[in-house]
Amino acid sequence: MKVLILGADGYLGWATCMHFSSKGHEVTAVDNYFRRKASERLGCPPLILTPELPRRAKTWKDMGGKAIRVLPGDITDYDFLLSVFSKCRPDVVVHYAEQPSAVYSMMGRDTAAFTLMNNLVGTLNLAYAVRETGAACHIVKLGTMGEYGTPDIDIEEGWIEIAHKGRKDKFLFPRQAGSIYHTSKIQDTDLLWFFARTWGLSITDLMQGPVYGISTEEDGMYPALMPNFNYDEVFGTVLNRFIVQAVAGHPLTVYGKGGQVRGYINIKDTLQCVYLSSMRPPGPGELRVFNQVTETFTVKELAAMVKKAGEKLGYEVRIENMENPRVEQEEHYYNPKYTGLMELGLKPHYLTDDVLEGMFHMVAGYRTTINREAIFRGIKWR
Amino acid sequence: MKVLILGADGYLGWATCMHFSSKGHEVTAVDNYFRRKASERLGCPPLILTPELPRRAKTWKDMGGKAIRVLPGDITDYDFLLSVFSKCRPDVVVHYAEQPSAVYSMMGRDTAAFTLMNNLVGTLNLAYAVRETGAACHIVKLGTMGEYGTPDIDIEEGWIEIAHKGRKDKFLFPRQAGSIYHTSKIQDTDLLWFFARTWGLSITDLMQGPVYGISTEEDGMYPALMPNFNYDEVFGTVLNRFIVQAVAGHPLTVYGKGGQVRGYINIKDTLQCVYLSSMRPPGPGELRVFNQVTETFTVKELAAMVKKAGEKLGYEVRIENMENPRVEQEEHYYNPKYTGLMELGLKPHYLTDDVLEGMFHMVAGYRTTINREAIFRGIKWR
Repeated sequence: MKVLILGADGYLGWATCMHFSSKGHEVTAVDNYFRRKASERLGCPPLILTPELPRRAKTWKDMGGKAIRVLPGDITDYDFLLSVFSKCRPDVVVHYAEQPSAVYSMMGRDTAAFTLMNNLVGTLNLAYAVRETGAACHIVKLGTMGEYGTPDIDIEEGWIEIAHKGRKDKFLFPRQAGSIYHTSKIQDTDLLWFFARTWGLSITDLMQGPVYGISTEEDGMYPALMPNFNYDEVFGTVLNRFIVQAVAGHPLTVYGKGGQVRGYINIKDTLQCVYLSSMRPPGPGELRVFNQVTETFTVKELAAMVKKAGEKLGYEVRIENMENPRVEQEEHYYNPKYTGLMELGLKPHYLTDDVLEGMFHMVAGYRTTINREAIFRGIKWR
Repeated sequence: MKVLILGADGYLGWATCMHFSSKGHEVTAVDNYFRRKASERLGCPPLILTPELPRRAKTWKDMGGKAIRVLPGDITDYDFLLSVFSKCRPDVVVHYAEQPSAVYSMMGRDTAAFTLMNNLVGTLNLAYAVRETGAACHIVKLGTMGEYGTPDIDIEEGWIEIAHKGRKDKFLFPRQAGSIYHTSKIQDTDLLWFFARTWGLSITDLMQGPVYGISTEEDGMYPALMPNFNYDEVFGTVLNRFIVQAVAGHPLTVYGKGGQVRGYINIKDTLQCVYLSSMRPPGPGELRVFNQVTETFTVKELAAMVKKAGEKLGYEVRIENMENPRVEQEEHYYNPKYTGLMELGLKPHYLTDDVLEGMFHMVAGYRTTINREAIFRGIKWR
């Protein structure tokens, strides 16, 4: 199968390229290096400095992997995206090519406008490219559980039947998000649903929770192949940040009381979910939505788990409840459904003590490169 | 009161400026002339060629009106918008500054991308300008009934309580629109609701149906003060188009069977609605939504009414059921609620035979300027 991966240099991107490649698919990797450059510019590079895509592809091939084609460029440039389609003629496009940080989107007017522009024009261009090239191509789009916010009713997988005044109809599940970034993902979903029903495109939208993990099966722990693992406030996800904080002797930064519940997923399971979805496309005109998480925790539970695992390994771990820079509920109902991907065959890697210890050991190997300044700066939502 | 009107050169914009001005308010008018230029570029200028804003403001003043300040510029340029706020310090902003045509948004990738960019970045900038200047300022935003699409349940005014599996919560009414333009308005609403609950902004979102009418109380039928009345497929609204078609001896262009039901409103009532909303702002953090229509018709009912009124005046009017270039249901349930604005004091001008005849007479006065080529070209959604 010909697989086009947009956003191939992100936390999930390169790992996804290798995962498809290892299973014999023909992979094309596209990225404009936005996140790499932005995290450098903001003084918060990833824990492990990885090379750019051509060098990663060469390393992968040198180690016996199948060739991965790299096409650097920006998908908000429509002519560039059309040139990618004409070279690659994909059967499936995995679309990660978005500004992925809620914090970045809330830094100011310019980063907010960039987030809207980048994410919506990129998604629009992708739909147009699929239609204009006549590709019989399935789009697998990364969404976020953050689209739903924290409603007082159970969260279904994308769709809900609403009964109202004696009549009923089926709708996208109501969504209201906590940042401009998360709002841009709601807007993406609305765009994709429009193109599914207007042009008959075939789309999977994966509502993913915060991902954690530093290594996947395919990287063999070679730095040149490992994920771009950020541990800072802007681009790092919460569990990854906590582990680095614990190793660096920085207090774990719990916002408010830490009662916020979210659904989490191991990066290895992200790869499974994207792969399983790609192998089983929905029909034309269908927007299929899965909630891509494997278990839920409160932030204070996560912090306690990290503290316990760290202390077992001899780290002194302190939890700090700080003023919440975000605008979010700290106590709320949260009951998302997430069975669809299991039904497709997902075998979850749960967050066990072993997994946490493994992450501690990996991070410890890079402890001298941790930049404490980058860990927390308190960028406010208000 | 200081009133800032964004999109002051559009169909509704200048009429709104005069309406507030006539009631003694201090009006600042902003526009980048997008619609004026685009309709010229596409060969479909308005029926009555109106001057640009400075000349309109001068005419208004010469005829005894209060001074209206004109600031030409583009609100997607944030520095420009900040300069407008520092000059005007508005108590209320009426935000019409959007690419307003569903057809334009569906012409191709570039017009679609422009529509998303223009509408979302403009709205984002407005929210930021209100917050950064600390203005205690109410935003009155023009939305569209098209955000809701044609659901199989009754359409409430913006909000709905959903009961699900023994629990319940209140959400924005589900929305799924029929064009990129309409989708951009859903996305606008999501942005505004985000800023209302995150920053405490005070916002009214007016879900307006197709507007009709060629003149308002304040223009005295002076061409220099009349609305920019488009009758073409791209920028004209349906009833306005039918009247011009009837006067020009062009068949009325009914798409498909014409069973599509929509809510309609007279331009004079638009002015009332915007004015009434401005005088009674919602509280901080509130997104108040009104459905801004006064009655509903099917497209075939409208065509029959125009035919009847035209024939009474001696026109030969033919109705043509053409292949629908849009992707929409031609038979569907449609039951919107629209009582909120009546409760605020709206006194509707309904679509009577007299109103239709009045429009026929006005349009007949400009019949020699009608460009038949501009009436229909069949721009397709698919």
